[in-house]
Amino acid sequence: MSRNIQVSRLDRRAVEDQEVEIVERKGVGHPDSISDGIAESVSRALSKLYLDRVGKVLHYNTDETQLVAGTAAPEFGGGEVIEPIYILIVGRATKEYEGAHLPVDSTALAAAREYLAETVPELEYGTDVIVDVKLGEGSGDLQDVFGEDEKRVPMANDTSFGVGHAPRTETEQIVYDAERELNTTYYAEHPELGPDVKVMGKREGDRIDITVAAAMVDRHLDGLEAYDDAVESVREFVTDLARDRTNREVVVDVNTADDYEEDSVYLTVTGTSAEMGDDGSVGRGNRANGLITPNRPMSMEATSGKNPVNHIGKIYNLLSTEIAESVTARVDGIRDLQVRLLSQIGRPIDEPHVADVQLVTADGVDIADIEDDVIAIVDEELADVTGVTKRVIEGDVSTF
Amino acid sequence: MSRNIQVSRLDRRAVEDQEVEIVERKGVGHPDSISDGIAESVSRALSKLYLDRVGKVLHYNTDETQLVAGTAAPEFGGGEVIEPIYILIVGRATKEYEGAHLPVDSTALAAAREYLAETVPELEYGTDVIVDVKLGEGSGDLQDVFGEDEKRVPMANDTSFGVGHAPRTETEQIVYDAERELNTTYYAEHPELGPDVKVMGKREGDRIDITVAAAMVDRHLDGLEAYDDAVESVREFVTDLARDRTNREVVVDVNTADDYEEDSVYLTVTGTSAEMGDDGSVGRGNRANGLITPNRPMSMEATSGKNPVNHIGKIYNLLSTEIAESVTARVDGIRDLQVRLLSQIGRPIDEPHVADVQLVTADGVDIADIEDDVIAIVDEELADVTGVTKRVIEGDVSTF
Amino acid sequence: MSRNIQVSRLDRRAVEDQEVEIVERKGVGHPDSISDGIAESVSRALSKLYLDRVGKVLHYNTDETQLVAGTAAPEFGGGEVIEPIYILIVGRATKEYEGAHLPVDSTALAAAREYLAETVPELEYGTDVIVDVKLGEGSGDLQDVFGEDEKRVPMANDTSFGVGHAPRTETEQIVYDAERELNTTYYAEHPELGPDVKVMGKREGDRIDITVAAAMVDRHLDGLEAYDDAVESVREFVTDLARDRTNREVVVDVNTADDYEEDSVYLTVTGTSAEMGDDGSVGRGNRANGLITPNRPMSMEATSGKNPVNHIGKIYNLLSTEIAESVTARVDGIRDLQVRLLSQIGRPIDEPHVADVQLVTADGVDIADIEDDVIAIVDEELADVTGVTKRVIEGDVSTF
Amino acid sequence: MSRNIQVSRLDRRAVEDQEVEIVERKGVGHPDSISDGIAESVSRALSKLYLDRVGKVLHYNTDETQLVAGTAAPEFGGGEVIEPIYILIVGRATKEYEGAHLPVDSTALAAAREYLAETVPELEYGTDVIVDVKLGEGSGDLQDVFGEDEKRVPMANDTSFGVGHAPRTETEQIVYDAERELNTTYYAEHPELGPDVKVMGKREGDRIDITVAAAMVDRHLDGLEAYDDAVESVREFVTDLARDRTNREVVVDVNTADDYEEDSVYLTVTGTSAEMGDDGSVGRGNRANGLITPNRPMSMEATSGKNPVNHIGKIYNLLSTEIAESVTARVDGIRDLQVRLLSQIGRPIDEPHVADVQLVTADGVDIADIEDDVIAIVDEELADVTGVTKRVIEGDVSTF
Repeated sequence: MSRNIQVSRLDRRAVEDQEVEIVERKGVGHPDSISDGIAESVSRALSKLYLDRVGKVLHYNTDETQLVAGTAAPEFGGGEVIEPIYILIVGRATKEYEGAHLPVDSTALAAAREYLAETVPELEYGTDVIVDVKLGEGSGDLQDVFGEDEKRVPMANDTSFGVGHAPRTETEQIVYDAERELNTTYYAEHPELGPDVKVMGKREGDRIDITVAAAMVDRHLDGLEAYDDAVESVREFVTDLARDRTNREVVVDVNTADDYEEDSVYLTVTGTSAEMGDDGSVGRGNRANGLITPNRPMSMEATSGKNPVNHIGKIYNLLSTEIAESVTARVDGIRDLQVRLLSQIGRPIDEPHVADVQLVTADGVDIADIEDDVIAIVDEELADVTGVTKRVIEGDVSTF
Repeated sequence: MSRNIQVSRLDRRAVEDQEVEIVERKGVGHPDSISDGIAESVSRALSKLYLDRVGKVLHYNTDETQLVAGTAAPEFGGGEVIEPIYILIVGRATKEYEGAHLPVDSTALAAAREYLAETVPELEYGTDVIVDVKLGEGSGDLQDVFGEDEKRVPMANDTSFGVGHAPRTETEQIVYDAERELNTTYYAEHPELGPDVKVMGKREGDRIDITVAAAMVDRHLDGLEAYDDAVESVREFVTDLARDRTNREVVVDVNTADDYEEDSVYLTVTGTSAEMGDDGSVGRGNRANGLITPNRPMSMEATSGKNPVNHIGKIYNLLSTEIAESVTARVDGIRDLQVRLLSQIGRPIDEPHVADVQLVTADGVDIADIEDDVIAIVDEELADVTGVTKRVIEGDVSTF
Repeated sequence: MSRNIQVSRLDRRAVEDQEVEIVERKGVGHPDSISDGIAESVSRALSKLYLDRVGKVLHYNTDETQLVAGTAAPEFGGGEVIEPIYILIVGRATKEYEGAHLPVDSTALAAAREYLAETVPELEYGTDVIVDVKLGEGSGDLQDVFGEDEKRVPMANDTSFGVGHAPRTETEQIVYDAERELNTTYYAEHPELGPDVKVMGKREGDRIDITVAAAMVDRHLDGLEAYDDAVESVREFVTDLARDRTNREVVVDVNTADDYEEDSVYLTVTGTSAEMGDDGSVGRGNRANGLITPNRPMSMEATSGKNPVNHIGKIYNLLSTEIAESVTARVDGIRDLQVRLLSQIGRPIDEPHVADVQLVTADGVDIADIEDDVIAIVDEELADVTGVTKRVIEGDVSTF
Repeated sequence: MSRNIQVSRLDRRAVEDQEVEIVERKGVGHPDSISDGIAESVSRALSKLYLDRVGKVLHYNTDETQLVAGTAAPEFGGGEVIEPIYILIVGRATKEYEGAHLPVDSTALAAAREYLAETVPELEYGTDVIVDVKLGEGSGDLQDVFGEDEKRVPMANDTSFGVGHAPRTETEQIVYDAERELNTTYYAEHPELGPDVKVMGKREGDRIDITVAAAMVDRHLDGLEAYDDAVESVREFVTDLARDRTNREVVVDVNTADDYEEDSVYLTVTGTSAEMGDDGSVGRGNRANGLITPNRPMSMEATSGKNPVNHIGKIYNLLSTEIAESVTARVDGIRDLQVRLLSQIGRPIDEPHVADVQLVTADGVDIADIEDDVIAIVDEELADVTGVTKRVIEGDVSTF
């Protein structure tokens, strides 16, 4: 077997060298991310249920969670949710196998509840948020089981496409890390920060503007002064974080839409704008690499919630990202690398129709110098395609 | 003011003396009773919310909770719910008052969650049961507030009818107490008994047949033998209870539909048949006195969930029962007493169009002997009509 | 085979002779009746689907339709529905039989749509009303088919009770006919009358008060004067109808809650109060005989939507009414007759545990004179118990 | 006022000249497109409602329609839908304005019904598909009205980004036209073709592979032979269409997943895969230009359903496409053109932060030769930004 791996020059400048760059990351508490996160949690839980009960992953797809926003009345010191957020888990799942009924609805609901408790802890389950479920049986054709023998590589059942990039540009790194650090390290010390943190980065030449929209939690703030301190604290944290990652000029703005005189600030009861008017759904936010990067080709495919055993779009989006990161980590002299995997119906998924690697090398590096190393790594990663499935099921890979 | 209280002879035998008597009580875990119970909890919670926030009870009605059954796979030692029960809280409520938004949806959901936790503790909220809510705003005409001044007696806004009886016949007492004792005293020692206990009593002459359908909880029973012991234990408990209350012949059957050879027994995961195919809704089960008594006139009006300040049907059903009990407790020589209250639109509710008391006296007692006492008690109870409202809001009165 | 038919004297006066009588009928456009009507239409449609596809009626129960009221802005000349009415069809049905999938959801929805088009024609499907469906699979035990051979009488699977009465009192007849005639003959000439007509009758001695609440349809009325004419026209029609049926004093009131000065009248867009705040559900309105009669024993059992092949409560409620009517039509000298049928688990349903016929005879008529005739008719009706099932499926019997 | 319009060379080859090109279009009957189409119809209907009632477009956003697939049993000659498709319209809308209630729910439902009737005519409303609606009130801050004076250009309230391209490559043109022609010209003669037509184009060098997945409607086909003819007819139609648009090698495949021996073909009752297992939601399919083009930068923003007056992402996605098309239509010598519009919060939307025009010129054409013409056209288009809003409301612009 030889895989069709092609390496060529990217016919554009490295994104790092382009004049204008735009990057965005929706934090885990953003309504679209909540939908992605629930869809993916439900997917993991169903995979585990099937493995546990019947030894293999059966057909399912849960990539359509819909979040309908609630209504809230935030207030310094502690307000309240008025009308709950409504979340509808949508998808297909195998509910019966060899005569046994499988608790897919209950499993999906438990996964969503647990995910929400971890991710949006201020949201009280059952009163601030209602989670409902509509999982159909799927079409007859697709109900055949798969993944029976984990060692066997599945066949592609669709023409699909995945794309990955590495390394991150400075702006991408700052945007990504800002959200991640705010929602972990920073939050640990600052419970007033809600998980609905949206970070936009815009670089023009050597100036990077970072705009953060951060939902604040009312019960941890006793008034406008405390709120203002909280905003300023986020600004300083992100500024420091950014300066650690670039020598370019950095300007950070937080909650720019606030209007103190009108008492109009980004205050919430639960830490997410889903409580007040912002709906969300799967596949509308971050791509599989955690970012929205209009400067780079992106797949429209929703990655979260898809079946990780046989959904070729999900696997190739995640795998192409892993390949790009692996190559740039292990091969020097690459300024920008893009991997595209295109499936071929009826062929094992470790043998894509084409694995197209395009790159921009550093000054003085020639593609010919590194081509063999690149091909070897891509080949190795493709050979381990089922490893992606395992890591997804274990929750070791983020899909948004 | 003089109240139109009429006392006359019941033109039938006391129910105790009739040849055939049928009585039923659906236990608190029965799907219809769960609906009643949630509707009434939500009602109490809204009354308290309004009192707390605006000092008076605003317009609402929550008497339409619909329960859609789930699917479960019970198993000795512990089975599982496959598809959750779905409960839809339906009704009308005032959501805004003088510019302030009132959290009626969240309050309703919290009340339902708490009620379920107390009443059907094996039911895991959010996975075994989904609770959703649709509370509309109600019609403009009715949104005028009421109850502003608790001392003022409200006007009847409808022609409505309430009926109450006392004392309970032996069969009624046995049926009522059997369910109540099973779900409290007995359950405290026997966690295998679920709250979905349905008790039917049939008396023909001097023989009373008590039929109990009792949902058993699978995780507390390790097999058919344990199940059989549990059934027998219920039978003995109810038999003893019945014999304490009557000298008539008593026969008790428990879970008569069981077929051990077919492994078909009344086993559940959660203790309620709502987990597997039995839907429920408000006003379909027990009347306001806790019983279904085809031998006696009954009101069709659903009592649970109605607004206790101005819903005349609810108030008169509860009040007529209280009056009947009060009169028979305080006046000797009454074998059967029936109170009917009929409202008159536009008159204060303590002045019914007619308060019609009919009774069967004991041998040797003449109506003339006791008429004045009866009228005095009825008058006193009617004067305290707003006390019913208070007791309902406090949860001191059961509505089903 | 001998049926246990008992004939005895009713130990009370005929209802016609009692001092106070209360009767109510909710018209077909009342929210509770809409729920009943949809539940029963769905039931008939499923029975026919099963007969058509598999030659016998399979297990189902659709007696839990829940109606959630909408919001409307009626206006003389034609207003509009603002928020649609939401109707949820709830129940259990067999969805698969010998490998074939049966379109129970689509069939239920089609039945509901057709029923609404006939009954509440002003209601525009899909915008004024949303109909949703949740039909589960039911419990395993009950999924066994039945009715396989129509000649075979099914066994009672529950202890249940049905009660019927005849003849109607004058008040009952007036209340019943008023609603029926208003919604047919009268409506044909008066499109401004909506189907939500509620009729209450109260008789005290020889005075009958009839109170009609009639929803008027806005687009057929150009102003308050036209409305007032419409109300007056209903009043005259009902007055004439009542006087044809009694020599007692009759007073008719229509839409008594109207307040012309406040422009508060019973005007609707669609002809039903479900458009504005009045929720509805099955089994909360008229009993199987079309009336609510607190002066008579009533069954709590919801008749509409139940499976007519094996639901003993439904069958016995309808059959006892048919028996009562048949006996009083064919035997002279009966002033009031009450039939109670009590099932016995495990016995064919044409052999009730007891068929208890109680009656009040006319002056000069002795029970002994007519007992044999009565028993013969009851016996004949019981023998034809499966005829009830057929008539229900054909829609020849009304259940509410 | 001078607009910040920048013209520069695209730092990549024209897509037409790239080695590999992938293009996809989901037809109007695809579940994601149905969601897009309903969302946009609802948006147009609400815009018109607001204009009609209050003279200006109020706040709303309806970009979250969720489609939950049904179950169907297609059969040659005519099968049936078993479980209906469920569509939930989600979003925010202003429901009350200066005391008047606006029928936003009814309007949304009517728009969805009409759209479905036109687009998926085989789908019977109310039985094959249930449409439900959850439109909340939105956040207080955003409820301020806008667009009051149509001549005034609104301010950008968000940092957003739109991107457009022109001209279409051959592959793009074939993919786009194939779906459009199949669903109009071809369908007019071939009612067996359902609207769920998905077209994928893959070009490698000078070979174009077109893969069509076309749902066939069962009642127009009497058997496998007729089906096979229908598939072949589509293949020929698309082949001819493609050859009219390119001199490259063209290979067309239709319904490649069919397996005639297993009787597994793409047969449907209603012409859409939504009837059997394929869920859909807004913003998951075609971009604003009607295509999915991984070779080009794309905006993640869902265009359908957004408010066309003030949603900057929607306006800029549509406008940038219009600009690109206008420039390439009026200026010769452009092989590939990309327009990016980036908004600036607080500035009128006709003055973007930057209007970035990048292009690849034909041989012998220099950017300097055409720059002034390009800038003039871009300036003119930006000046008419409110024209986009009007055309969207009139339905003259497609959003997917």
